[in-house]
Amino acid sequence: MKHYPEAMYRLIRQFCKLPGIGQKSAERFAMYLLSAPDTEVAALSKSIGELKKQVTVCKTCFCLSDQETCAICRDPGRDSGLVCVVESPADMAAIEKSGAFTGVYHVLQGLISPMDGIGPEEIRIRELVARVRAGTVKEVVIATSTSVEGEATADYIDKALKSFEVNVTRIASGVPMGGELKYIDQVTLKKAMEARRAV
Amino acid sequence: MKHYPEAMYRLIRQFCKLPGIGQKSAERFAMYLLSAPDTEVAALSKSIGELKKQVTVCKTCFCLSDQETCAICRDPGRDSGLVCVVESPADMAAIEKSGAFTGVYHVLQGLISPMDGIGPEEIRIRELVARVRAGTVKEVVIATSTSVEGEATADYIDKALKSFEVNVTRIASGVPMGGELKYIDQVTLKKAMEARRAV
Repeated sequence: MKHYPEAMYRLIRQFCKLPGIGQKSAERFAMYLLSAPDTEVAALSKSIGELKKQVTVCKTCFCLSDQETCAICRDPGRDSGLVCVVESPADMAAIEKSGAFTGVYHVLQGLISPMDGIGPEEIRIRELVARVRAGTVKEVVIATSTSVEGEATADYIDKALKSFEVNVTRIASGVPMGGELKYIDQVTLKKAMEARRAV
Repeated sequence: MKHYPEAMYRLIRQFCKLPGIGQKSAERFAMYLLSAPDTEVAALSKSIGELKKQVTVCKTCFCLSDQETCAICRDPGRDSGLVCVVESPADMAAIEKSGAFTGVYHVLQGLISPMDGIGPEEIRIRELVARVRAGTVKEVVIATSTSVEGEATADYIDKALKSFEVNVTRIASGVPMGGELKYIDQVTLKKAMEARRAV
């Protein structure tokens, strides 16, 4: 195989490492960049190179930030007594996009998963307990996924915060909006039935 | 929207310009790079930055190359009397992958398309005629797409080479392998019927 120059092959191999990208997409990317304006290609190269230098982790909530403390933790308009616990920065971004939350976050950077050798010490639970112990937190909303690991982590956090004067809540499980009942799995339906409430 | 640092947003916007990549994929790429090894991220940044410097165009066949003359044109094992005319380097790569061609190529870098203001002068037809005029070419296989532009370009090349002592052929049109007859369009079936041959 020598139908592309080595520099193309190298770039194609590297693009292939991106999540969800195979040989064909990687080739399209490389071809696109060859015909893209020089400034655009240079800007992409620079942004990738500088990403890790410019992005750090907020020392309070462990989300992605460009400063020691992130924009949300710094914002006086956010309720710092209401803390939403999520697995990852991507989950935090999803909740932010919904616009339904006005408190602050705590990013665990993982979930408890004994199968992968990840115990409570490997994720940011100790730091969450310390935040609660400091005394200003009134409610902790656990918004981990509803997977086995997410549920186990939620359970663990609930127990870890038992001894403090803080409300621990869990985001609701149930039928997703726009969901057709006949296509919803049984476990979800059971949860939705159990958690029924007055209209 | 301030749930990611500015450096993340910048990179996400730039990834969104890649063909077929939307907001979600771009976010996944950026998240992946944040957790990828430093060396891998630096290598990707470098490869993108150096791509255009390292990749040039072969002065004989106009395919992508890292030298003045590409690896295929330099290869003494290839039949330089048999020239396959294609639209783009990607088309050339597709034919190379099939392993069905042992000659050399001529990359037009486009197709005649009056709607887009691309006439015969805008693509590498003049250079193809010059190659044929030089006298060593015995057969020109036109392997442009079977689109309107591809057919028009094939026609034009056929006429342009009429006055030379060279065989001009066109790759076969017909039912693709593995194709179910009932799903094949009528124009393709008509072509396949007209071009029928002894078994």
